[in-house]
Amino acid sequence: MARAEGFELFALTVRYGQIHRREVEAAVAVARAIGATQHTAVDVDLASFGGSALIGDGVIPKDRPLEGVGAIPSTYVPARNTVFLSLALAWAEVVGAEAIFIGVNAVDYSGYPDCRPEFLEAFERLASLATRAGVEGRPLSVRAPLLRMSKAEIVRLGAGLGLDYGLTHSCYDPDTDGRPCGRCDSCRLRARGFEEAGIQDPLTGAPRT
Amino acid sequence: MARAEGFELFALTVRYGQIHRREVEAAVAVARAIGATQHTAVDVDLASFGGSALIGDGVIPKDRPLEGVGAIPSTYVPARNTVFLSLALAWAEVVGAEAIFIGVNAVDYSGYPDCRPEFLEAFERLASLATRAGVEGRPLSVRAPLLRMSKAEIVRLGAGLGLDYGLTHSCYDPDTDGRPCGRCDSCRLRARGFEEAGIQDPLTGAPRT
Repeated sequence: MARAEGFELFALTVRYGQIHRREVEAAVAVARAIGATQHTAVDVDLASFGGSALIGDGVIPKDRPLEGVGAIPSTYVPARNTVFLSLALAWAEVVGAEAIFIGVNAVDYSGYPDCRPEFLEAFERLASLATRAGVEGRPLSVRAPLLRMSKAEIVRLGAGLGLDYGLTHSCYDPDTDGRPCGRCDSCRLRARGFEEAGIQDPLTGAPRT
Repeated sequence: MARAEGFELFALTVRYGQIHRREVEAAVAVARAIGATQHTAVDVDLASFGGSALIGDGVIPKDRPLEGVGAIPSTYVPARNTVFLSLALAWAEVVGAEAIFIGVNAVDYSGYPDCRPEFLEAFERLASLATRAGVEGRPLSVRAPLLRMSKAEIVRLGAGLGLDYGLTHSCYDPDTDGRPCGRCDSCRLRARGFEEAGIQDPLTGAPRT
């Protein structure tokens, strides 16, 4: 979507200790496919703090109902998107970027507090105060174009923009060959999105319904 | 100051690629001396982004006037305190902390945007929206008790609380044995602070004036 708007792309991936390292390789492939000028993977060891199943502290829920789950799940990584956006802000300032794009979603999601619109607005305000660019009157915008879309809408939009979903990865708990488990929240939200969009997922080969 | 208020202390140091690694050893010594329950040093490679003399990209200014320097200097590290506070927020949420203390100062400082009160207020607001604790009605406070004090006041206060300044480190560009250069902004602000406080700095052995 950023490319379609004419932005030059600097892609950032964070290796924060996630069990699903497979997503880092997927990010490299996607960044290459969409013609990013540069892709950087930065390490920050959130696993040293613990506190989340995604970094090996606790159990990743499987096969649970996707609706009506009120509590924040064990896959919540404390302050993760704050750390991600801070790192993006650091790099954005160095390359002179006008905007940070982040793919968070507040519709078909797992109830994480740092995926909500009010969180993103607060970060954008922080960014304008935190940086040389902001002080000098060139504040960055923080954009989350997927925020209010359903997974089905997102799947259709990506397909329309020519994205090869075979390059992507969503699973929290893939096997050693990187294949999705099909049972975690992230797999099931993805499957439902493809199903509702009427598009076949090349990763799972699940038939169109 | 946090200990004097009765807080249990979890000390966090960030190895972000700073040339002055000596400060990490100093942080370990200080954390031990003040009785921190735990001290964690976390790695995040801001040097991979570049953009600051403190991480080897550019020249650290020496012997420049400390007053009336309007522009943000080459030692500014893009979004550094945002990254620091984000990491502190992540750990704070895991240990169930009530407050984050950060030693920034907006009086005798180098003009960094992310040392200003409005930056800290914006981060505190962000923190309340970013975390499980905030959503559940237990927002963290972000405290910067040194913010509006002069370096001389800070030096006196630390001495009064029994801090051994021989354990500390301020220099941006120490020699290979960790000895301060005496000429960077940080050394000169420190020297002026000790001088105005009428206290001898055990690091430099500079006499009381």
